[in-house]
Amino acid sequence: MLEDTIAAVGPPDEPAMNAARQLQARLTKPAGSLGALEELSVRLAGLAGSCPPPVPAPAAVAIFAGDHGVHAQRVSPWPQEVTGQMVGNFLAGGAVVNAFARQAGASMTVIDVGVAGPLPVAVDEPDAAGPDTPRLVDASVRRGTRDMTVTAALTRDEARAAVEVGIGVADELIAAGAGILLTGDMGIANTTPAAALVAAFTGVDAAEATGRGTGVDDPTYQHKIEVVRSALRRHRPDPADPLGVLAAVGGLEHAALTGFVLGAAARRVPVLLDGVIAVSAALAAAAFAPDSVAAMVAGHRSAEPGATVALRRLGLTPLIDLGLRLGEGTGALLALPVVTGAVRVLHEVATFDSAGVAEK
Amino acid sequence: MLEDTIAAVGPPDEPAMNAARQLQARLTKPAGSLGALEELSVRLAGLAGSCPPPVPAPAAVAIFAGDHGVHAQRVSPWPQEVTGQMVGNFLAGGAVVNAFARQAGASMTVIDVGVAGPLPVAVDEPDAAGPDTPRLVDASVRRGTRDMTVTAALTRDEARAAVEVGIGVADELIAAGAGILLTGDMGIANTTPAAALVAAFTGVDAAEATGRGTGVDDPTYQHKIEVVRSALRRHRPDPADPLGVLAAVGGLEHAALTGFVLGAAARRVPVLLDGVIAVSAALAAAAFAPDSVAAMVAGHRSAEPGATVALRRLGLTPLIDLGLRLGEGTGALLALPVVTGAVRVLHEVATFDSAGVAEK
Repeated sequence: MLEDTIAAVGPPDEPAMNAARQLQARLTKPAGSLGALEELSVRLAGLAGSCPPPVPAPAAVAIFAGDHGVHAQRVSPWPQEVTGQMVGNFLAGGAVVNAFARQAGASMTVIDVGVAGPLPVAVDEPDAAGPDTPRLVDASVRRGTRDMTVTAALTRDEARAAVEVGIGVADELIAAGAGILLTGDMGIANTTPAAALVAAFTGVDAAEATGRGTGVDDPTYQHKIEVVRSALRRHRPDPADPLGVLAAVGGLEHAALTGFVLGAAARRVPVLLDGVIAVSAALAAAAFAPDSVAAMVAGHRSAEPGATVALRRLGLTPLIDLGLRLGEGTGALLALPVVTGAVRVLHEVATFDSAGVAEK
Repeated sequence: MLEDTIAAVGPPDEPAMNAARQLQARLTKPAGSLGALEELSVRLAGLAGSCPPPVPAPAAVAIFAGDHGVHAQRVSPWPQEVTGQMVGNFLAGGAVVNAFARQAGASMTVIDVGVAGPLPVAVDEPDAAGPDTPRLVDASVRRGTRDMTVTAALTRDEARAAVEVGIGVADELIAAGAGILLTGDMGIANTTPAAALVAAFTGVDAAEATGRGTGVDDPTYQHKIEVVRSALRRHRPDPADPLGVLAAVGGLEHAALTGFVLGAAARRVPVLLDGVIAVSAALAAAAFAPDSVAAMVAGHRSAEPGATVALRRLGLTPLIDLGLRLGEGTGALLALPVVTGAVRVLHEVATFDSAGVAEK
């Protein structure tokens, strides 16, 4: 399944991109005056292979939840059971991601790919998903990763299984009609493996890839950098072997998000990336299939420094930059209207000729 | 009317702001993890005088259209008749602002406050406004300003009349139920008076306040700077006399937007600012009533350098920064979901207690 998905990821369609550039130049606005939205519309035309590309709707956000053995190293001030409690909060509609999904009209699917503790709620029916009725999918690969400072976080088989969970979720959401996928995540301590992934794939030092996550004090921050550094030193992950990197220092939600991004790219559906968890997974996806970057849209610039390192490597410019560091998919959801708007312009705006407006 | 409006603008409500800060700290998310959205929600609570503040909906964008005598100085590559033609495009639903207003569900009102040429369409009924049926209001003060390099652009009475048009439009939209106002503008050559206003109110040099507008080449850009400089040298406008500044080097849409911002502030309704035209007018509003800044939300950072100068002076951080330089209200509309989302968080997100989620 992973190999087939990778093989299905293709390059952007140049004629469609050129058609979008030419259409932008005929619309009733000064050339270039929509800034980054114009290039975004061109990229989405290239992904779809048509101009205009389809309006990216309906939107579906998938929140992959997992726990982390490295939590034992005290890299987060939050107790591990918060992961499961927040899954309960998502399903009850009380988290920030719920408020933003309702506002954006996005369906919400929560995937337990490796929560350690028991979940507070039963698994819903698959057809119940919608902005007001988040759905829970039980796809647990194992109840949290192992501590990467002691041993590999996952076996290669476990990492592959998690990647394939993500591919499957992308396939299912697209088959159900989603026109754009949004990444979400929940996992106490998951900025630590994200930092390790960013460092492993880009080669930057642990200090440059590591941030304060949901808020750690100075001593914990220094300790967190040392934890990331020590895991990298122990495993020396090879960036040319993305499955090996994910197994050594990744998380189950990171691996699943990697598959989710690859699944979207294989189906030529745009995937709107949230914060540092998503972009660290996107680095793995790009290592599996470099052309998958064509399907990625960077929703926002997380306050986590590793996110900026990863975005630079991927060549992506984020749409929103408001200092968010919440995760859950919140940054991606805030950016969704920008993506939709960029495409609607190609569908709805009159040309100079059709509107009878004079040109320069 | 102007004096009454200025007198009605009051300071933000500190208890409501403190209540919003305390509520943010109890919501199920790490403290501060929503970045700029948290401070935005606090500001809007202070403006409304309640916590949570009302969700800022429905939204109403007002596009003030006018022409400019300084167009004769060849500061724009576009013919002046494009102003009226674009008004026709707005009413026909074919401009970018229409696509964004439809997406955001915002009503759209186009106000002729001083278009030079004849408009291509009849004046609609006032009750016809909606996302799909833009309304045209005839409130023309004069058919374009005079050339500010030769004489004052407006008399003080004309400037006051235009400001009062804006106050009246704000009053009317709020009376009709708008929970947030968005600024829009149309006027070929209107970045030239905007640059002059920014320079006059902030004291920066013309070169720092002037940009390429909708796209001028290098020689025209240098010439445009000289035009702004020469107008400022001729009139030496006094920033402590905002009506005098607007009369000397402003535009009819700039003056109307000044009143629109003051009207929103007087009614304690947030006003989402678009680009350089809006923020140059916001400087005038702040000169009339410094507390009016509490009602302002900076939608985006225009590519025009004068916008950044003005935002810095106003102490406002823009929500979107994507290199837009189109005007019309497009940048404000793109930012609208961020503002709405920031407030919905206070209404909809569970607290740690209510959701049974553990804290740090």
